[in-house]
Amino acid sequence: MSDRVLLAHGGGGELTARLIAEHILPRLGNPALAPLTDGALLDAPPGRLCLTTDASVVRPLEFPGGDIGRLAVAGAVNDLSVMGATPLALTLSLIIEEGLPLAVLDRILDSLAATAREAGVPVVTGDTKVIERREGDGLILSTTGLGVLRPGITLGMERIQAGDRVLISGTIADHGLAVMACREGLGLRSLVRSDVAPLGDLIGGLLAIGGVRFLRDPTRGGIAGVLADLAEKTGLGIEVDEAAIPVSPATRQAAELLGLDLLGAANEGKVLAVVDAASAALVLAACHAHPLGRQAALIGTVVERAPALAELVTAYGGRRIISRPVGEELPRIC
Amino acid sequence: MSDRVLLAHGGGGELTARLIAEHILPRLGNPALAPLTDGALLDAPPGRLCLTTDASVVRPLEFPGGDIGRLAVAGAVNDLSVMGATPLALTLSLIIEEGLPLAVLDRILDSLAATAREAGVPVVTGDTKVIERREGDGLILSTTGLGVLRPGITLGMERIQAGDRVLISGTIADHGLAVMACREGLGLRSLVRSDVAPLGDLIGGLLAIGGVRFLRDPTRGGIAGVLADLAEKTGLGIEVDEAAIPVSPATRQAAELLGLDLLGAANEGKVLAVVDAASAALVLAACHAHPLGRQAALIGTVVERAPALAELVTAYGGRRIISRPVGEELPRIC
Repeated sequence: MSDRVLLAHGGGGELTARLIAEHILPRLGNPALAPLTDGALLDAPPGRLCLTTDASVVRPLEFPGGDIGRLAVAGAVNDLSVMGATPLALTLSLIIEEGLPLAVLDRILDSLAATAREAGVPVVTGDTKVIERREGDGLILSTTGLGVLRPGITLGMERIQAGDRVLISGTIADHGLAVMACREGLGLRSLVRSDVAPLGDLIGGLLAIGGVRFLRDPTRGGIAGVLADLAEKTGLGIEVDEAAIPVSPATRQAAELLGLDLLGAANEGKVLAVVDAASAALVLAACHAHPLGRQAALIGTVVERAPALAELVTAYGGRRIISRPVGEELPRIC
Repeated sequence: MSDRVLLAHGGGGELTARLIAEHILPRLGNPALAPLTDGALLDAPPGRLCLTTDASVVRPLEFPGGDIGRLAVAGAVNDLSVMGATPLALTLSLIIEEGLPLAVLDRILDSLAATAREAGVPVVTGDTKVIERREGDGLILSTTGLGVLRPGITLGMERIQAGDRVLISGTIADHGLAVMACREGLGLRSLVRSDVAPLGDLIGGLLAIGGVRFLRDPTRGGIAGVLADLAEKTGLGIEVDEAAIPVSPATRQAAELLGLDLLGAANEGKVLAVVDAASAALVLAACHAHPLGRQAALIGTVVERAPALAELVTAYGGRRIISRPVGEELPRIC
């Protein structure tokens, strides 16, 4: 028996059945997944539903601080959480490149299962396909999250007002720089660690405080993408205090070595919140009390300004416009 | 501006925003998708929910009778339908290979949107990633379907009894042979057409008759995979009358030329139903009255038999065991 995935593992026959029975079910098994029917049945809770989807195409598959399995779960859970929803169920679509060592697949599925347990959400249904060999190290995961909206919570850009504060739940750019440092073979690769983590519990705590107007997880495009989007769509300005943005020393060093912009780099375990001014200190304190929010900081303020732009105010009082990254810097970062 | 997808289109920046705004939203736009938030909000209907997921990796992307866009929608809708659910919403994850012509992407999105309209289900949220160039013709779609179970319908293998009849809603193997004939460049490629279609309406009609115990769409692995699975899991035998199985002449000829087994080839617009004997004629008539079921036929009977096997009874009275295909024959067929 080969110790790598074969094209025939994707044919829908005996080998597909064995791949699922021997490698996937023992790791992800739960009552909803167990019947292996074409879909999973779930009891619908009262309330509005939230549906979100994400494909993970990161390379390498394993990097300091995480792997594609943890990323796939965190991505779906965090998208639900920033919408104000509690995750109910995940679906998992595996697109495996022929030649992937089964041992790697097993490690990634173990990590995915552990992250799902950490987030308290079951993988209820899935699909497995195999594509032709490329470099023999390929795996793409696509996850969909189903959640139910927390009662009494309304979030949205249209609620943002001048005077609101901008909060980030911790150091920025750790995921993007961890993956790039790993890919470039930098010596400091072991120091730069991805922040990839499911944020449902942290975000539940923030929402319980009240005063939160808008949440977004700054993944691809980083906080620059979110801030530029906010200014463009709200018609308000955002002033961001560069010195207030938390950055780990190793991540900063890697960004300098690689010539990458910290603001445009991906995060996978951070939330950017816009909070009314009166609640900002309490929401910040709630972050600090959570293991995933210890380095949270208030980094900016929403202001009336024409034209509506997000601006970085540097330590020396200079200003530079924060624009959405164009995109070519960081392919396959998540 | 390039007329092909660039890696930068997947970076999460300005180019990603434009790809979505110019190519995706005009085709798929609807009120749930329009806000482009991290997830879509939906009103939960009363009843149990059904969640299903599928990745489409078919090559070529366009083939006689369909394309990967139509396949991605039909796959999700049909999985929901055979579970007894009515589709509410789809999610769409696009994994695009760098170099894909934008004109091809546009055609596939048009087809996907038309199929979603045909099935009466909106695409409510999505994700777009770009991976490195391979052969410049690559696109993978992953769709998740959310549905609500039809009230009063209980389907399941455990309900199957000796004496039940096996029904197929039309000619078999058309999808698998259309794709393979296209890939092999056979002269008859224009005659063999994929059956890819969303079956929600047809299946709704069958379920309204009553007496349906179990449904499955025989995709990868074909009707052989479903029949072998049924015998293995119910502990009952299944006798299938070879002469009763509907096969189009062009598909049969392609199977002979390519040396492929019709029973193991994929279908993407057919449903296999197990129906109680008393209802079988009525359910068959309901199929015949629907445009997608005109060639439906009763092809077999569930029997008490040890060991529990699915068997094909040939025109000459011979018998051969129907086993689940091993898998290598047809990579990337769906």
